[in-house]
Amino acid sequence: MKSNRKLRYGMIGGGEGAFIGAVHRLAASLDGQMELVAGAFSSDAKNSRRTGEKLFLDPRRVYDSFETMARVEAAMPEQDRLDFVSIVTPNFLHAPVAGLFLKSGFHVVCDKPMTLSLREALELRRIVQKTRRVFALTHNYTGYPMVKEARDWVRSGKIGRVLKIVAEYPQGWLLDRIEKQGHKQAAWRSDPKKAGNSCCLGDIGTHAENLGRYITGLKIEKLCADFTSFVPGRKLEDDANLLIQYQGGARGVLHCSQVSCGEENNLNIRVYGTLGALAWHQEHPNELKLTLKGQPARILRRGNAYLGSAAKAGSRLPFGHPEAFIEAFANIYTEVAAAIRAQSRRGGAGEFDFPTVDDGVYGMAFLDAAVRSAQSRSKWTPFPKLPIKQ
Amino acid sequence: MKSNRKLRYGMIGGGEGAFIGAVHRLAASLDGQMELVAGAFSSDAKNSRRTGEKLFLDPRRVYDSFETMARVEAAMPEQDRLDFVSIVTPNFLHAPVAGLFLKSGFHVVCDKPMTLSLREALELRRIVQKTRRVFALTHNYTGYPMVKEARDWVRSGKIGRVLKIVAEYPQGWLLDRIEKQGHKQAAWRSDPKKAGNSCCLGDIGTHAENLGRYITGLKIEKLCADFTSFVPGRKLEDDANLLIQYQGGARGVLHCSQVSCGEENNLNIRVYGTLGALAWHQEHPNELKLTLKGQPARILRRGNAYLGSAAKAGSRLPFGHPEAFIEAFANIYTEVAAAIRAQSRRGGAGEFDFPTVDDGVYGMAFLDAAVRSAQSRSKWTPFPKLPIKQ
Amino acid sequence: MKSNRKLRYGMIGGGEGAFIGAVHRLAASLDGQMELVAGAFSSDAKNSRRTGEKLFLDPRRVYDSFETMARVEAAMPEQDRLDFVSIVTPNFLHAPVAGLFLKSGFHVVCDKPMTLSLREALELRRIVQKTRRVFALTHNYTGYPMVKEARDWVRSGKIGRVLKIVAEYPQGWLLDRIEKQGHKQAAWRSDPKKAGNSCCLGDIGTHAENLGRYITGLKIEKLCADFTSFVPGRKLEDDANLLIQYQGGARGVLHCSQVSCGEENNLNIRVYGTLGALAWHQEHPNELKLTLKGQPARILRRGNAYLGSAAKAGSRLPFGHPEAFIEAFANIYTEVAAAIRAQSRRGGAGEFDFPTVDDGVYGMAFLDAAVRSAQSRSKWTPFPKLPIKQ
Amino acid sequence: MKSNRKLRYGMIGGGEGAFIGAVHRLAASLDGQMELVAGAFSSDAKNSRRTGEKLFLDPRRVYDSFETMARVEAAMPEQDRLDFVSIVTPNFLHAPVAGLFLKSGFHVVCDKPMTLSLREALELRRIVQKTRRVFALTHNYTGYPMVKEARDWVRSGKIGRVLKIVAEYPQGWLLDRIEKQGHKQAAWRSDPKKAGNSCCLGDIGTHAENLGRYITGLKIEKLCADFTSFVPGRKLEDDANLLIQYQGGARGVLHCSQVSCGEENNLNIRVYGTLGALAWHQEHPNELKLTLKGQPARILRRGNAYLGSAAKAGSRLPFGHPEAFIEAFANIYTEVAAAIRAQSRRGGAGEFDFPTVDDGVYGMAFLDAAVRSAQSRSKWTPFPKLPIKQ
Repeated sequence: MKSNRKLRYGMIGGGEGAFIGAVHRLAASLDGQMELVAGAFSSDAKNSRRTGEKLFLDPRRVYDSFETMARVEAAMPEQDRLDFVSIVTPNFLHAPVAGLFLKSGFHVVCDKPMTLSLREALELRRIVQKTRRVFALTHNYTGYPMVKEARDWVRSGKIGRVLKIVAEYPQGWLLDRIEKQGHKQAAWRSDPKKAGNSCCLGDIGTHAENLGRYITGLKIEKLCADFTSFVPGRKLEDDANLLIQYQGGARGVLHCSQVSCGEENNLNIRVYGTLGALAWHQEHPNELKLTLKGQPARILRRGNAYLGSAAKAGSRLPFGHPEAFIEAFANIYTEVAAAIRAQSRRGGAGEFDFPTVDDGVYGMAFLDAAVRSAQSRSKWTPFPKLPIKQ
Repeated sequence: MKSNRKLRYGMIGGGEGAFIGAVHRLAASLDGQMELVAGAFSSDAKNSRRTGEKLFLDPRRVYDSFETMARVEAAMPEQDRLDFVSIVTPNFLHAPVAGLFLKSGFHVVCDKPMTLSLREALELRRIVQKTRRVFALTHNYTGYPMVKEARDWVRSGKIGRVLKIVAEYPQGWLLDRIEKQGHKQAAWRSDPKKAGNSCCLGDIGTHAENLGRYITGLKIEKLCADFTSFVPGRKLEDDANLLIQYQGGARGVLHCSQVSCGEENNLNIRVYGTLGALAWHQEHPNELKLTLKGQPARILRRGNAYLGSAAKAGSRLPFGHPEAFIEAFANIYTEVAAAIRAQSRRGGAGEFDFPTVDDGVYGMAFLDAAVRSAQSRSKWTPFPKLPIKQ
Repeated sequence: MKSNRKLRYGMIGGGEGAFIGAVHRLAASLDGQMELVAGAFSSDAKNSRRTGEKLFLDPRRVYDSFETMARVEAAMPEQDRLDFVSIVTPNFLHAPVAGLFLKSGFHVVCDKPMTLSLREALELRRIVQKTRRVFALTHNYTGYPMVKEARDWVRSGKIGRVLKIVAEYPQGWLLDRIEKQGHKQAAWRSDPKKAGNSCCLGDIGTHAENLGRYITGLKIEKLCADFTSFVPGRKLEDDANLLIQYQGGARGVLHCSQVSCGEENNLNIRVYGTLGALAWHQEHPNELKLTLKGQPARILRRGNAYLGSAAKAGSRLPFGHPEAFIEAFANIYTEVAAAIRAQSRRGGAGEFDFPTVDDGVYGMAFLDAAVRSAQSRSKWTPFPKLPIKQ
Repeated sequence: MKSNRKLRYGMIGGGEGAFIGAVHRLAASLDGQMELVAGAFSSDAKNSRRTGEKLFLDPRRVYDSFETMARVEAAMPEQDRLDFVSIVTPNFLHAPVAGLFLKSGFHVVCDKPMTLSLREALELRRIVQKTRRVFALTHNYTGYPMVKEARDWVRSGKIGRVLKIVAEYPQGWLLDRIEKQGHKQAAWRSDPKKAGNSCCLGDIGTHAENLGRYITGLKIEKLCADFTSFVPGRKLEDDANLLIQYQGGARGVLHCSQVSCGEENNLNIRVYGTLGALAWHQEHPNELKLTLKGQPARILRRGNAYLGSAAKAGSRLPFGHPEAFIEAFANIYTEVAAAIRAQSRRGGAGEFDFPTVDDGVYGMAFLDAAVRSAQSRSKWTPFPKLPIKQ
């Protein structure tokens, strides 16, 4: 690969009526490191074409189906060929689309949750290992600089042994049954065939779990889940609350909801250790509260010289010029781009800071255990044994 | 009783080294409605005497034991006799002291948790009913005006049907084993003989439960508790997390801790309904966040004309002149004073806004169920049936 | 004076319809160090009597006029005689009432602004010096523990040389002309005969000035004021904005208003030094933000072991149990009580932490200069030379 | 112009060591509406080349001087020619560079303050009028959706007549004399030859002034300024405080600083009207506080259905997914792109929401008046008469 060029990528999903596709495009374009050149934006051919046109794409590279796209793009000459694809479809398509593009030789960025089931996740992991392609899962909240700073504080031991994680993620947008009112995103997320066997925990609770694990490295030993479908007629849960016991003795509380009136996207995490504590709120992402034992709380802010290298690397603007969601999301893409460039140079991905297929497997195992717990009369459901490094 | 005089009260407990006794005295004296005239402040006679002297008490009314105090004070002529006593001892003395003073004819204000066990609580309730004395339990957080405002919003139906309560109460003061370093309050709270079979949930979790019940009126159907003693050697739990199912289908998350580094007294509650949501933080008590569906969040603030009558009645200062812990605590005493004066006038307590012996019974049932759940392998432990109006 | 008794005080002003009188009584009674035993609560004899009755006072010590009160109380035997009086009348009575009671042998606590004019202030100062009585001015915001902590940080040099003070005090309660609608407090405050030649700056701006001086010790060299009466028909200013140059080169911005819609009592101060900065907000008074150069901001909170001795001494409750307006106000009274007891013991007042008659003189000089500046076409109006230690 | 293509732009300034150039590039690329294809990034040819290479530019379109760039690019065939240029140089180059590119037929986006002097600003305005090119000044803070919402509330009359604006913009990054330590941005900003006759007010105070005018439409009648150079040896002011009287009687306080320790980029504005008030803080830009008279404060948040059309149009993400500085900045570019496309279609710019050359003239008049006031002994300096619609 010629090093001094932008990467080229294509997108599957993300047509009109979608939400996360546009976010991926904003994130991918932000740093000027890559350009969108192809897409199968919708199973509706007209939608796909209109979307491509708005994005100034060459109409010949706008496809009606992802299968056609994979075939045609794989046959492109190297100077035009895609470097990677972004998969932003509903959940049920993640595994087949990702599998096909990986096998067709492309690197893959995929939205979460990774698959419909733990089994599918493990199968996708085998494909990634076999094809040796870069595979990234967009647990985008780990892209925030102050989350990276939090991770540094925990991993360096400066807040001591972690005793407790309180992770919460309340939203309120599904308080009415809008899936019956033409709301496309609500429709597939609440449909077991398209979303899998969880709505709330799969859509947002997995972010909260992933965030806690990213910061602390703690692995779950067992958990206890209470799922509720508050809105009549809804098949999947719209509220999920969990007690967690981590390996090594730490405890966790994780609660999330899509029916918490007035809540927008209120992902919060607090990590309490023997020597200090951290708190981070997604809706005010440029700040990290750090309280060391016996000392006043400190408000660490993005962009300052006192931060660690990971927070600095994930930051574009000076202090006081807030960065937010898109910038954090872009950090995932930036790391992916670096990994792709590195692999192209060295034949190996090296160490980059983005969620991998193993994170996806772990997340699906978490969902799997939580769904089983929600149906169980036993207090504790053990976390599955996984063939990944935990 | 002569109406135009201050009430007279005595105190049991609250000597040097104690914390909550001084708070009760500040609260009782604030509104100039009552005066402290007697006390058995400590089982250590010298401590009791020194405390009485600092409080400008007549030394003849400072006692070495609560038994003596009850006997002597009951024999006083009416113009000197106590109207009520405040019990601020460690938990294990609540029931015997309260029982004795009730039977000796005095009204009683008692700190929480009410007793050592549910059985004791039910017995105390019988004594209250039999003696027809005013009995108040100082779940002081319900004294905050903005908590009363929250209650009004829920009880009037304006936030719709309550779906979820998230109550949290993290503290960090027991992160070290200070009970072995001469810290008296830590010592008795972590000693099963003096505190009962719970430390964290009994000391603070009961406040969180009571607060949720005060605001919403919801009763627990079943619960699932995870207790942990993080500090080595500590016999009782210093961290407790609960999932709750309420009668009627609402869900709850209640988590509390005494080992959450950096947390001071961070009691928070959020109530989510079908039409709106409320959030209140004890550390910023003059504000109540209200979010009605589809509307911007509103920050209701103490002292404003737009508030309901209960919030107004519990308020002394104009808006912007913050009131806080002592003032809220004083509201309990003010209501008790009104009840005592009313009973003296009419022979009946009428309707006053303070926590009663029934609240104490309910709280002990909550503790009882939670302790049993923490030891159980079943997910859900049913809440006990109680002979009180639930 | 017998040391082991409560102090006795009387009140002038503070009858029905008043605001600040009740606040003084709450503050005075809080710590159980003093009791109200006499009063001339209103020039309306019935109002005075009704007020005395509600306060459980002996009717013989409730007076129709402050002159009678001074005469009768001064003739009381020592075991009944007042130790001090609290003056909570409209401004125009401060000087005559204070003068009379000082000359009658009583210590005095007086509300601010101290007098109607700088001349009156200087005269009152002479009386205080001559009578050698304790005289305290209730610039109550200096009673907050975290304000004392701020003072410690500045005075110890830890934030370096002070460069700038930004003090603001917006309120909104006079946005309508409520002085014409029977609002007694608005009526006298906007009446030049009763309030003096300033409404907004005199009522609240002086608090902001005093607060800045308390924390930093900086004295004003010259100032530039812009006064506005926004509400038609109002004779005195309801909005005042000032640029300030301090002795030694620091700069100041002080703005206050009574017509800032939605503002309650939003006194804020920020002090910027060469090594650090401090920020304190009266509406969240338990916190002090401290930012040392190159370091994250720290949130210092009342009640913690890391605070200095002044903040600790001004604090009653453990961390996380918020204290607020009454408690801070009570700190003034507590210091006054200590000064009175000390003088009674030693014949000298010693060092106590409350605003003195010199602070009152300074405040009146500030008002005097600001009023002159508001009428001047010159940018800078020099601060008057004063015979006090500046 | 072919409508279905990205716009092409070039950049003058923004090489290594610069700050704002990179911000412009992030903002321009965000929405995928335009691409950078040429640049003269530095007067240092190597710096310019290295910068072009990192940005994946064709080396033939990376220039050593802006004069060469203007000449060569103007001669390009239409299918390659730039649509516009972005000028991100130090202030002293704004006028010559903008003038040259306008005369060469290009639209221009220019950083602020627009010129070195009011005279230069008026001359640039004549060029813009004559060449009929789109000219935008990047007062980027007006690009924030919640600022647009604030403007809607004021302009619709819903907060009544505006009485007072409090605008503040403290920073702390120039607390040390870093202009002597190789800090390029500090060096030119504090150099009168490159920055003009103001440092602090020109760099940030103009943003605060512009923001107030954008929201309220109020024009200044007269002002009073106090400038200080706190850091020894610094020629231009690093702290500036102003009292303002607006046409029609409203009052203003505007204070800004570059030596306020611990402040990052704390642009805040409060607008008080007769019926309501607004407050917006740049460091938490997704929220707008609105308080209507007699009602609780409301926290309006970006992305919600209850907002007006301007706030909605300036927003990319759903509520709770915070947007920030780059997104707001991008809104300026997006409007410029729409204006350029519209002009190309219709020959006229129409109505677009970005700061114009008239805003630049106004801003320079503000600087001019403030600098004169700072040197004057009169309290009030009148605002210049301008040939623009005020």
